[in-house]
Order: sequence, then structure tokens, then C-alpha cells
Amino acid sequence: MAKVTIALLQHASAADPAANTAKTLSLAERAVRRGANIICTQELFRSPYFCQSEDYAHFALAEKIPGPTTEIFQSFAQKHGVVVIASLFEQRAPGLYHNTAAIIDADGSLRGLYRKSHIPDDPLYYEKFYFTPGDTGFRAWSTKFGKLGVLICWDQWFPEAARLTALAGAEIIFYPTAIGWHPREKKKIGSKQHAAWETIQRSHAVANGCFVAAVNRVGRERPAGGDGLEFWGQSFVAGTSGEVLAKASAAKDEVLLATLDLAQVDDTRTHWPFLRDRRIDAYSDLTKRFRD
Amino acid sequence: MAKVTIALLQHASAADPAANTAKTLSLAERAVRRGANIICTQELFRSPYFCQSEDYAHFALAEKIPGPTTEIFQSFAQKHGVVVIASLFEQRAPGLYHNTAAIIDADGSLRGLYRKSHIPDDPLYYEKFYFTPGDTGFRAWSTKFGKLGVLICWDQWFPEAARLTALAGAEIIFYPTAIGWHPREKKKIGSKQHAAWETIQRSHAVANGCFVAAVNRVGRERPAGGDGLEFWGQSFVAGTSGEVLAKASAAKDEVLLATLDLAQVDDTRTHWPFLRDRRIDAYSDLTKRFRD
Repeated sequence: MAKVTIALLQHASAADPAANTAKTLSLAERAVRRGANIICTQELFRSPYFCQSEDYAHFALAEKIPGPTTEIFQSFAQKHGVVVIASLFEQRAPGLYHNTAAIIDADGSLRGLYRKSHIPDDPLYYEKFYFTPGDTGFRAWSTKFGKLGVLICWDQWFPEAARLTALAGAEIIFYPTAIGWHPREKKKIGSKQHAAWETIQRSHAVANGCFVAAVNRVGRERPAGGDGLEFWGQSFVAGTSGEVLAKASAAKDEVLLATLDLAQVDDTRTHWPFLRDRRIDAYSDLTKRFRD
Repeated sequence: MAKVTIALLQHASAADPAANTAKTLSLAERAVRRGANIICTQELFRSPYFCQSEDYAHFALAEKIPGPTTEIFQSFAQKHGVVVIASLFEQRAPGLYHNTAAIIDADGSLRGLYRKSHIPDDPLYYEKFYFTPGDTGFRAWSTKFGKLGVLICWDQWFPEAARLTALAGAEIIFYPTAIGWHPREKKKIGSKQHAAWETIQRSHAVANGCFVAAVNRVGRERPAGGDGLEFWGQSFVAGTSGEVLAKASAAKDEVLLATLDLAQVDDTRTHWPFLRDRRIDAYSDLTKRFRD
């Protein structure tokens, strides 16, 4: 199975989790009709991006894994014979919450979880209030359609996370994401922010000779009032040299598809043999906060 | 001293080391006249890119550091009050050679050395024959015009090297480089190769909130006959969000200047606080070859 078709589900969110789940299922069905083998949701697809404020009421959005939503997508995966990566707000234990991705294989089995490791805390992105930093480490899962890694949003800024996921064997790294502009900043620095976001994820493909797929939501959301956030969409898939293979718009609901030849991972790494030449004897200070 | 002007010396090379040194000095003088504070040479500026073949005769190009060339540039730095980063083929001991950068402060003192850590070995880039992998580790030096890090060419593909250099305090990371197209591959994959090169170096600026400056040679060189290599120039400077601030052409001798506000390092890192959120507890496997 060298060629696989992946589908990224990019869309705007409603207030009602049931409506968002229904929309995601509808987009996933469209992806299946168009030949998808692996389907990845956007980050926290069941809800608006609630982290725009620190509100205890939002913890009610969390659910157990396995739980109702993973069951829905396990049934979907089994019915259609596709792999599903579903981003969820997980209640792991009373008072202990994570931003988690469930990896469901094409037979409907829950293959594993990745819990977001790097948690942001910036104006309107108050995630440290909600999410305990993940303790899963950086993983890859063998599925029917390839060995997959999953990282989540803020993880995308850290080359260490991509490297460790690739070293675990990932041929494709998926990044469910919720990132947007502060509307008042967009005109001045919006394009620079977006370019940085796309550049660093393309660079993970370059450094590791693997595929990278980022799926981001669209739409203006103001759950806490104020200006809110304008999510910039532009979900994309990068090839093993960082080239953009497919890219969605900035504002529309879309199913973004790309067909990937997984044999290119070996071919790219053999011709640009970065894994051969890593100086693992010289990297121990990467576990330091700063070298002062 | 918040604002500094850097100059990258991009040029074609002749067979004669004395002629190349003279050209480099001439470009450096032009840089001084245009206000440069920090001047960086291209990789191995004294010679053609001799690594296109494995030829014992080429070891005669190496010299001691300190040695004749560092003395020339120490005098130049002292005379003009500028910092110079000079890329040299170093004979460290009998039969022990490195691809080395000398960092010379604005008072003419030799501040330190960086010895290339990651050594390529690809068709026409037979560097493992010539250069022992460096044992300096990844460093930064306080100079009159800022704290500088230096990495060399193949190092640019490794996020670990940029991270460790930034963690050592570098505000600007310089990359003396010699990279080009195999002429027969250029039409088919040349633009993808160049884009990967620019993308990953811009990503080091993004990940680390620092400036990145890459200086590459130009011209077709065929020291071993055959098709040779067409060096792609396009030296560039990236800002602290990875934006391209200045970029040279693909084929001309140029002094590429950029004036940098070093206060942007702190500002960028505070607004995009990746250093705050690195999961140093989860990175220990970065010293593994593969996680199998």
C-alpha cells in the first residue's frame, strides 16, 4: 500500500457540539466518496474555540476517551474502512483534562491517543487553564494506510516534536489546529504570522523527509465577546521536501484531499540523508531550558 | 547597540586562493563603505568548491588557524572596527582537517572557532573525505555588534544545530554555504531543492525568534570535469519571524546588506514564547539515532 489519499476537514464551527459533530461526519462522508483513506479533523472540532476565555463552564464540553464521540468515529471508520484522527477535549480523570487526538484504525479499533504536549497561553488562547500538558510523549501508529504521527497546533512550532515523531517512524505527521488572527492585528502582521506558520510546518517535512498535513478551522468566533478571532483556514499538505501539494482557502468549509506516495519517504531521505548525519553525540543540551 | 548592519559576501570563485582572498577583501571593503558592522564570507571562499572529487592534492589548500588568512582578516577587522566571520579549510593537526569558521571581533581579536558539525557526502559533495566532524559543539560569541552564532552549510538542515546555537544566546545565526544544482537536475527539481533550502533556514528563525543569515557562492564550477555544480547564490537574511528581509540574485557577485534591530529577538520571543513552552522533560530521545 504505497499510495494513500488523506482528507483534511476544514470548517467553521457552531455553538452546538451535536451540530459540529454532524457537520464533521458529513464532511467525512464526502471525503470517503472522494476516495479518502485517512481522515483528520480540525482541532477541537466539536465546539467553538472556547479557550478565548477562562470559564469553568467550558469543562463540561470535555468527554471520556473512549466515549461517545470516539464511538461515533470508530463506527464510521469500520463502516467505511478508513483511518480517522479525531481531535477531542478529553476528561482523563476528575479535574484532569487534555487536548487529545484519538487515532482510529480502518477496522474501527482505537489504536491510541496523543495528548498535546506544548500548551499555549497567549491573549485569547488561554489553553494552560484547560489542558494539562500531555504525557504521552511523541508517537507513531501503524495503521492500515501507513505509519502516522499526530501533533496538535502549538506543537507545530517545536522542531523537537516533529523530529521525535519522525524518529518513531511516522510517514505522515498530522497537525489538527485552531489558529487565527486577532482582527485588529491582521492588516499589519497577519500575513507574516501566517507565513511563519506555514514555513515552520513545511520545514518539518524538509528536516524529516516525511509528509506533513495541517488542518485548521475557518470563521470568526467571538464566544467571549470582544473582537474574537478570525481563524485563517489554509489547511495544507506538504510533500517530503516541504513542497505544498494541496492547500485550502482561508474562509470556506472544505474537504482537502491529497494522494501521497509513501515510498517517497525512503527516497527523499536516501537522497537527502539528514537522518544519516544527525550528530546525536552533540545534542544532549536540547533537554536544557537555556545554555547559560 | 540595538541596530547592526550585516553584510554577506556572495561571489564566484577563481582557481587561485590569492585571487579569491583579494576579491573577498575588496567586497568586504565595499561592505564597510556601505556601513556594515558584521561581515560574513561564503563557505571556503579561498578556493573553488574542491569537494567535487576526492583528491589528496586538495589538502594543500588547508591552513592553520590562527594563520595567514585569519591574520589578514584580523587586521581588516581592527582597521575598520568590524566583526568578520571567515570560513576556512583548517589543518588542525597533521592529517586532521576541519571545515571551520573563525569569528573575529571588531578589535581584531580572534574570538573563537566553530568547526562544521554535520558533514555531507553526496555526489560531488564528498566532504566526509576531507573534513573531520567538528567537536566544538554549538556556540555563540559576544562581539561588539551582538551575540553571534555560526553554523556551516549542511548544518542548516538540522533544527537541532540552530536550536542549540540559539540556546547558547545567538541573536543572529550565520550560515556560510556552498550549495548548488547538479546542472542535469536543475530543470526538474532545482526549484524544489532551492525552496527546501530557504524554507528550513527561515524556519530556524521562526522556531528560535532570532535572525538567520545565509551566504552562498555563485557560478558554475567544474574542478573535476564533468557537468560540475551550478551554485545557486540567493544569499538571504531572515527576520525573527522567518520573513525574508534581503535576498541576493542567483548568479551575480553581491554584497548583501541588512540592518537588524536586535531588540526584535526579545520582542518576538515574548510574543511567540516558544522558549517558554519547550517540553525539555520530553526531549531526551533526540540523542537517539532512531526510536525503534
